[in-house]
Amino acid sequence: MVFHYPNGQKAVTTTSSIPSKKRKPNFANRGMVLEEAINASNRYYAQRNLAVVHKKPTPIQIVTVDYPKRSAAVIKEAYFKEASTTDYNGVYQGYYLDFEAKETKNKTSFPLRNFHQHQLDHIKACIAQKGICFVLLWFSSLQRCFFLDGEMLLEQWESRERQSLTLTFLEEQGIELTLGFAPQIPYLLGVEQYLQTKEQNTHGK
Amino acid sequence: MVFHYPNGQKAVTTTSSIPSKKRKPNFANRGMVLEEAINASNRYYAQRNLAVVHKKPTPIQIVTVDYPKRSAAVIKEAYFKEASTTDYNGVYQGYYLDFEAKETKNKTSFPLRNFHQHQLDHIKACIAQKGICFVLLWFSSLQRCFFLDGEMLLEQWESRERQSLTLTFLEEQGIELTLGFAPQIPYLLGVEQYLQTKEQNTHGK
Repeated sequence: MVFHYPNGQKAVTTTSSIPSKKRKPNFANRGMVLEEAINASNRYYAQRNLAVVHKKPTPIQIVTVDYPKRSAAVIKEAYFKEASTTDYNGVYQGYYLDFEAKETKNKTSFPLRNFHQHQLDHIKACIAQKGICFVLLWFSSLQRCFFLDGEMLLEQWESRERQSLTLTFLEEQGIELTLGFAPQIPYLLGVEQYLQTKEQNTHGK
Repeated sequence: MVFHYPNGQKAVTTTSSIPSKKRKPNFANRGMVLEEAINASNRYYAQRNLAVVHKKPTPIQIVTVDYPKRSAAVIKEAYFKEASTTDYNGVYQGYYLDFEAKETKNKTSFPLRNFHQHQLDHIKACIAQKGICFVLLWFSSLQRCFFLDGEMLLEQWESRERQSLTLTFLEEQGIELTLGFAPQIPYLLGVEQYLQTKEQNTHGK
């Protein structure tokens, strides 16, 4: 039986022969709250013609597809693949936007192990093409969200001195986003502030 | 048993209780040659740091996931969803690129029914954000490929006068791309020519 959420989306059900205690956590649902908040913000911006940003679909390796009579094709065997890019991209007033969102339950720092090398490689390549890259870092225990630009993240990543970004570092070098109702995560404010700072630095040189 | 192509990709196998003659065509494979040529071109551009463009994964609605003991999660039931955007986007020298690729077996015109309203809506929204939008139109019988900018496509789509774009129209208003070995589809040449024409028109005003 297929359950539907009130928004018409089908529920993802899990079948397993493993006793529930030993069952592996469903990583597909980790960070769903953050993801939904960003998707809602994307919709908010799109509806007001402020930006066009979409989450990329999760890449799936399809192995078997069944074509039942008079019905839609059913994927019967498939596996999750690792993405080669970040999760979100789009366009805002001529700027290419590219970002990733991550969350931690920590209260004093953001572990860099939340990121993968391929995500940093992608961010680096996009920056080389003059794209605006950033990450949204969500401290779920603190209910605080920081915008950190890609250059800054790369610098920290490549120095390898830090295993994590301290909250103090993010308060100083990041841009804290005040969460709201609509949009829930006003990341375009972060983009605007980043662009202004960048322009000031350019003129100051 | 899972077959592997020499490139390490798993083969997609089809199971069906319908006799093969009555089996529906596998739409997932339609246009695979064109898609692979574009993906190869994207890799070519990426390797030379010329642009970062990726095909978006096919959106899938996952219904059931199995977590076998000591193995990767297996998707046991899922369905193809309709995409809400175009297939390709990325960044090129500060420009946001967004495009869709379509093919026809026709020899004298390109049917507009190859496009969907949501794709045109997406192109329109991206153009409003100053993104560079276009379509690559592939005449498989003629082995000819045209770059048509999003503004021109929208104009034709919205006029609804034409059911299709004639080859003559594309020869006059589009940019024909000479197919090569690397990249197979040199769409950045189309982008460059489009940008030059646009700049000339702006200065001419």
